[in-house]
Amino acid sequence: MKKLYGNAVVGQSGGPTAAINATLAGVIRGVLEDVGEGAIKTLYGMRNGVEGLLEERLVNLNELFAREENIEMLEHTPAAALGSCRKKLPKPGENDAVYEKLLSIFQKYDIRYFFYIGGNDSMDTVAKLSAYTKEHDYEMCIMGVPKTIDNDLVVTDHTPGFGSAAKYIAVTVQEIIRDCAVYTVPAVTIVEIMGRDAGWLTAASGIGLAVNGIVPDLIYLPERAFDKDEFFEDVRAALKKHPNVVIAVSEGIRFADGTYVCEGFGIASVDAFGHKQLSGTGKALEVAVKNELGCKVRSVELNISQRCAAHIASETDLAESVSVGRAAVKAASEGVTREMMVIVRDSTEPYRYHVDHSDVSRIANQIKKVPAVYINERGNHITAECAEYLLPLIAGEAAPRYRSGLPAFFVIE
Amino acid sequence: MKKLYGNAVVGQSGGPTAAINATLAGVIRGVLEDVGEGAIKTLYGMRNGVEGLLEERLVNLNELFAREENIEMLEHTPAAALGSCRKKLPKPGENDAVYEKLLSIFQKYDIRYFFYIGGNDSMDTVAKLSAYTKEHDYEMCIMGVPKTIDNDLVVTDHTPGFGSAAKYIAVTVQEIIRDCAVYTVPAVTIVEIMGRDAGWLTAASGIGLAVNGIVPDLIYLPERAFDKDEFFEDVRAALKKHPNVVIAVSEGIRFADGTYVCEGFGIASVDAFGHKQLSGTGKALEVAVKNELGCKVRSVELNISQRCAAHIASETDLAESVSVGRAAVKAASEGVTREMMVIVRDSTEPYRYHVDHSDVSRIANQIKKVPAVYINERGNHITAECAEYLLPLIAGEAAPRYRSGLPAFFVIE
Repeated sequence: MKKLYGNAVVGQSGGPTAAINATLAGVIRGVLEDVGEGAIKTLYGMRNGVEGLLEERLVNLNELFAREENIEMLEHTPAAALGSCRKKLPKPGENDAVYEKLLSIFQKYDIRYFFYIGGNDSMDTVAKLSAYTKEHDYEMCIMGVPKTIDNDLVVTDHTPGFGSAAKYIAVTVQEIIRDCAVYTVPAVTIVEIMGRDAGWLTAASGIGLAVNGIVPDLIYLPERAFDKDEFFEDVRAALKKHPNVVIAVSEGIRFADGTYVCEGFGIASVDAFGHKQLSGTGKALEVAVKNELGCKVRSVELNISQRCAAHIASETDLAESVSVGRAAVKAASEGVTREMMVIVRDSTEPYRYHVDHSDVSRIANQIKKVPAVYINERGNHITAECAEYLLPLIAGEAAPRYRSGLPAFFVIE
Repeated sequence: MKKLYGNAVVGQSGGPTAAINATLAGVIRGVLEDVGEGAIKTLYGMRNGVEGLLEERLVNLNELFAREENIEMLEHTPAAALGSCRKKLPKPGENDAVYEKLLSIFQKYDIRYFFYIGGNDSMDTVAKLSAYTKEHDYEMCIMGVPKTIDNDLVVTDHTPGFGSAAKYIAVTVQEIIRDCAVYTVPAVTIVEIMGRDAGWLTAASGIGLAVNGIVPDLIYLPERAFDKDEFFEDVRAALKKHPNVVIAVSEGIRFADGTYVCEGFGIASVDAFGHKQLSGTGKALEVAVKNELGCKVRSVELNISQRCAAHIASETDLAESVSVGRAAVKAASEGVTREMMVIVRDSTEPYRYHVDHSDVSRIANQIKKVPAVYINERGNHITAECAEYLLPLIAGEAAPRYRSGLPAFFVIE
């Protein structure tokens, strides 16, 4: 494609992460540093993804980030500074009004570049929009820039955002293991970690395997069927070794028949009106272990801090997120379109990577699971190979600046 | 009392904190630096508090911490490195066998100094042991060294350990508020924070009031009776202002009749056998708001990270914890006994404090609540005065050293 000249728009979509603003900062840096050599004039930010774009809720990012200080602050701000959405575009042909509206906005603002930072669903948006603009002869470069704490996108070695979530989990679980070790009374602590279909985040709880040997006693990922009897056997065996057993589980673990563990154990919360609501996986296992073993049990759900704990972000992750954003601007200005930026690992020790891009249709709507070699034979822990893959991604601490003891975040009103 | 010469023993008791090892490090530093001018020769550590002392499970801390590097690492290690216990000593006269055993161990190891780092129950141990040794003419200095994340000890301005827990909560809630702001769909997020009887920790969620104005929309402490109707009114009013409402609640909030909110709403978890277990306060409110308002609601329980998140410890808290430990050694060597170390605030701006000590019988078995002037009239937020009291306590970041992306902790095997 010939080089396009015009304006650009960038949006954030899907669940927030601690690094998605670093990627946005990378796109902004790319434009302000003019890596596209004149291709992009003004960079607009769409508020709440395509949802806000359809309403022309745009901000001028060249102006907003004229000061370097603001970009730096943005890099350390968790969650999507532009706001996010969960809007999925209709299939082209089904409801063309949406696409016509988008096209008219592109024309109105002379937008020739579209950067969409997001996960699986966002790559679907990139693919559909690419198809539509191509079909309607509107020359435009449309790029997907990946982010997801789940690390479940294919082709890319890992996803921006994952390293920071993994670091939060790895560090927090180290602290929880210390906390659990203080009493002599037998007790089981179950830590529930995000991950509906892929166990990458839960695997990160075992990263100490490669560093200091301090890991949860047991780790269960959704990639392996959960066997109730084997589980109780495992817990009994662990309690024989020491009184304080720590177990990490993915929220998405299932029995062999496909039933989620949180459903299968039949634990529900009931209100005064008798309304039932399924409890979480950790809670279900807590009650199950209490009933079966009779010992002290508690469950801890790490919850949304997994995706927004900017205060313990991975330096490697933030740096990569910035460079992926910047590289997207460069690639697009060279005529690349309908591609997603990917991270290619060149070497693990020492850790080296480079940024590339790949056809988004190879990536959208697929899930990358934790491979079999990363899980031990019994299916109750990770392997050394897994820890080695994970380790470089949590390297370095990228703390925000603090003012009066609180982190300074950049907020777009 | 005349100056005593002999050995010392130190123990940790009650729930762990991110700073209790910093206080232990302070006691060790006091002994190694010989602030007692020859009074103390060897410092023993009791494993698992008085429980381990009764079994003579002692470690020689002079040897273990001969290297400065180990002390520094200990200062940044969460949870009780010596282990903890929840043992309450019997009333003197009820079961003297326990006291006789302790006395024989003191004599055997020539122990003349006893330092007990703990909360309310630990101060009770200090008081009882003081009474017994005095009555039996065994010359000994027995000192309480405070720690509790709950900040509920009287006389002292605040307790070592509180500042770090407060900082974790303050920072995490700032991040959660960012995370919640990304979507445009009305949603309520309820954050449950530790504190059964006193709301100090929950108050810390509102500390942004004095810094950046970013605070939860609503904050409920156990010091004020919880009114269901007023609560729903408050939530409705907050949702009118913006779509993403964040509410911080103490686990211990109760209705006017004294019933805990987690009981009063009648939300329970039920397993397949019909066993019921009360859910947490956050979960109870989540279901209640969902039923009443019909909007999207979730609850987040900050859980044990509140007490063990060493990675975001308050520098002020760790420094004070060390100095309180060191000062305890100095005071004891000067003949002070049956006292608890206290922190006296000399000024808030600039923040200045000094360490003193106070009769433990004035402190044990009492609870310091959040005063009325720290809570707003409606009972749904803190006041500026409260934020100003809290602010100096979370100042500074005292990160541990990291090895390969994980914090380096000192573990006593």
